[in-house]
Amino acid sequence: MLSSTVKAQIISIVSASNFDDTKTGRLVYSYDATPNFQSMPDAVVSPRNKQEISEIVKLCNEHKIPIVPRGSGTNLSAGTCPTEGGIVLLFKHLNKILEIDEENLTATVQPGVVTLDLINAVEAKGLFFPPDPGSMKISTIGGNINENSGGLRGLKYGVTRDYVIGLEAVLPNGAIIRTGGKLAKDVAGYDFTRLFVGSEGTLCIVTEAILKLIPIPETKQTMLALYQDLEAAAKSVSKIIASKIIPATLEFLDQPTLRVVEDFAKIGLPTDVKAVLLIEQDGPLEVVQRDMARIAEVCKDQKAVSVQIAQSDAEAEALMTARRSALSALARLKPTTILEDATVPRSEIARMVAAINEIAAKYDLNICTFGHAGDGNLHPTCPTDSRNLDEMARVEKAFEEIFEKAIEFGGTITGEHGVGVMKAPYLELKLGKEGVAAMKAVKDALDPNNIMNPGKIFAKDSRKRVVVSK
Amino acid sequence: MLSSTVKAQIISIVSASNFDDTKTGRLVYSYDATPNFQSMPDAVVSPRNKQEISEIVKLCNEHKIPIVPRGSGTNLSAGTCPTEGGIVLLFKHLNKILEIDEENLTATVQPGVVTLDLINAVEAKGLFFPPDPGSMKISTIGGNINENSGGLRGLKYGVTRDYVIGLEAVLPNGAIIRTGGKLAKDVAGYDFTRLFVGSEGTLCIVTEAILKLIPIPETKQTMLALYQDLEAAAKSVSKIIASKIIPATLEFLDQPTLRVVEDFAKIGLPTDVKAVLLIEQDGPLEVVQRDMARIAEVCKDQKAVSVQIAQSDAEAEALMTARRSALSALARLKPTTILEDATVPRSEIARMVAAINEIAAKYDLNICTFGHAGDGNLHPTCPTDSRNLDEMARVEKAFEEIFEKAIEFGGTITGEHGVGVMKAPYLELKLGKEGVAAMKAVKDALDPNNIMNPGKIFAKDSRKRVVVSK
Repeated sequence: MLSSTVKAQIISIVSASNFDDTKTGRLVYSYDATPNFQSMPDAVVSPRNKQEISEIVKLCNEHKIPIVPRGSGTNLSAGTCPTEGGIVLLFKHLNKILEIDEENLTATVQPGVVTLDLINAVEAKGLFFPPDPGSMKISTIGGNINENSGGLRGLKYGVTRDYVIGLEAVLPNGAIIRTGGKLAKDVAGYDFTRLFVGSEGTLCIVTEAILKLIPIPETKQTMLALYQDLEAAAKSVSKIIASKIIPATLEFLDQPTLRVVEDFAKIGLPTDVKAVLLIEQDGPLEVVQRDMARIAEVCKDQKAVSVQIAQSDAEAEALMTARRSALSALARLKPTTILEDATVPRSEIARMVAAINEIAAKYDLNICTFGHAGDGNLHPTCPTDSRNLDEMARVEKAFEEIFEKAIEFGGTITGEHGVGVMKAPYLELKLGKEGVAAMKAVKDALDPNNIMNPGKIFAKDSRKRVVVSK
Repeated sequence: MLSSTVKAQIISIVSASNFDDTKTGRLVYSYDATPNFQSMPDAVVSPRNKQEISEIVKLCNEHKIPIVPRGSGTNLSAGTCPTEGGIVLLFKHLNKILEIDEENLTATVQPGVVTLDLINAVEAKGLFFPPDPGSMKISTIGGNINENSGGLRGLKYGVTRDYVIGLEAVLPNGAIIRTGGKLAKDVAGYDFTRLFVGSEGTLCIVTEAILKLIPIPETKQTMLALYQDLEAAAKSVSKIIASKIIPATLEFLDQPTLRVVEDFAKIGLPTDVKAVLLIEQDGPLEVVQRDMARIAEVCKDQKAVSVQIAQSDAEAEALMTARRSALSALARLKPTTILEDATVPRSEIARMVAAINEIAAKYDLNICTFGHAGDGNLHPTCPTDSRNLDEMARVEKAFEEIFEKAIEFGGTITGEHGVGVMKAPYLELKLGKEGVAAMKAVKDALDPNNIMNPGKIFAKDSRKRVVVSK
């Protein structure tokens, strides 16, 4: 609960209409897209500009009130659940594309801009902002920056981090600083731009970003390769890349996922095969055609039972839309959907897929696997029910083993979803005690009162949990 | 001076043959490629592996002895001058390419590997490591990582940071940690990989790196566009990019630089024009041809007096070699060469070149300007003589104004050379007091005893200086 003095001070900063501490108002922001971490904030605040953000941060720093910056809450690691109370900070007033600079190939945006709106705006000018997280229709750029979001085009184009070249941010002490700029090169001091990207709101509040754009690829083609052998599909992925072709997108869907997606999207996906690869290449037409022919050869060499190139833009779009609907489709199966993003070097995908299936069998769970195979970024997904405590305990153990396997194969506990609350207990698996301690030292240095999204990234205790029962 | 106890301890760690505190031995490592910052280390130490590095770091941390990690000392910001004494750490025993992984497109290397050796090794496998700093024939990967080195291919391919995906590093407390991995995506905790890249040896000792490789471009072509108008040359740069072509290399040389380079390289460069652009595009042949034709059109539209495509690989190579020799050529003119790397948004190059020339005239100095125009990364270079105190005072003032202009145009004080000692007093110009304070807080958190390359990045006082007189 905020004291009446603090409440009055916040209202004096943002005005009464941008402050909400009603129960219904708070309830709306008590959860995000992650199951089972619901927790109530003390208030929901919508500042109108960076000066107001700075004043709020100073006030919260003085009173040690947690601040949870929140875009659209689409993250999958409970990164925006106000697990320690405090205020949820919304960016609905900071939602403008300030500039698209065609000479410097940059966009300057406020954090509340919806990702797809930015993508559409730059594409209208023949430019391209590649990061395309699954939630891009509703996610915000600010959220993408805080989570260093990935997406389907990560293989060829990289992730959000690779397109953020400058930031304006409010530090926990209220200082407003700028990093980077419209600059292809800048080595003036530590790379705070990249330190802040993916810091999950634990180091600063991003108030503006300069994004790098590239020319939009001239054309693209989409291909579906079908397999009766999971390992052959997985091996095709590393063979394609070892043959020195980097497709824009290289997605994997196993049979259980395929069946659910087809049932949802009804576009005639094959459901009688064990796995498919959905492959997209973009670029100049002649290069795309050449690459696609070579990719088809590699897939056939690796025992693909069928390789089909989409014959129209509409067909290609339908395939990609179906893939993008995988989470929504899986979420219909059971009340609770646990979707993970264990990531391995791409040479280990075959072993990782096999390991996931073994673990699922061991714990008698239904785990569907799909994901960005070209990045080694898999999404093993378990449709379950958080009320079934026995099954949840097995889900818990299964995912712990999946994380351990990913690390054993040289991978990581999270490729693109972030650590949040959900994976904080597993962070040490990846970084070791000393690695976590070093990161925590940076956090403590910049945010000594631990007001910035507390409880995220760094675990309070070492109890492992993918879900909590309430 | 190291105490005899500490000296004995270091020798017991690395063996006597890897310890040198003779005057001649120390003299060799008392300077780097930066003029006028010579200072003697107390000893030169060559550990044989990471365990030895960890032990040395622990010892130095206990006794608060500065450690200056050093590759080949080619940096231009006095980043490896032992200005506060202590030990210079060499990596001559950690000089192996440990693996080139063709499935995951990675190279795992020790810090002492020479950049060009790595480039050649990966190219032999049809792969490509783009960062190509001017000193790549002798610079080391470890040095490149510490400085986040750029180069001629930065425009299309980015800088060293964009190709480092994992590190093994010894922290100031002696802990050996690993960041990242052979992973296209990894968001497990803060991005320490990128925090360490470009941290100039002030946060950790890098002991191993996983580098991202890409397929080698199939072909390349080189073009020389000549101008009688500096501004037209500069404008061509942003016009080329605004026309949605990103060349691999887009270099600018003004007439004074051209004359010096031609005198040095003798390959028939035109010396009667005011400026040239040296442009390289790589990729599939048909795309390169199309891009080069369009680039030629843009240059002609912008009043280029001549546009010539190199007719053979030998001719192209000669042009690039000439450009790469610019620093060496300029260094022959006078005893002291002050080469800077003020960087601006590429749309501001024309104004920046004009400003540099005005400032040179104002202070009666000869300043030659060349550089990576596509990146907005210019190298205004002043051949001078550090014994001429009057001229040095003017050089000082001129470069201070150049930095201020770069900031005024939305740029930075250093695009690729690093802050080091030389530009530490100017860092606040770019980051503001609060930005510098935040970076210093991170430094203090990880290195509380300030043993890691002390005096670099963060200025001891605010006295501005490009050179010091001794």
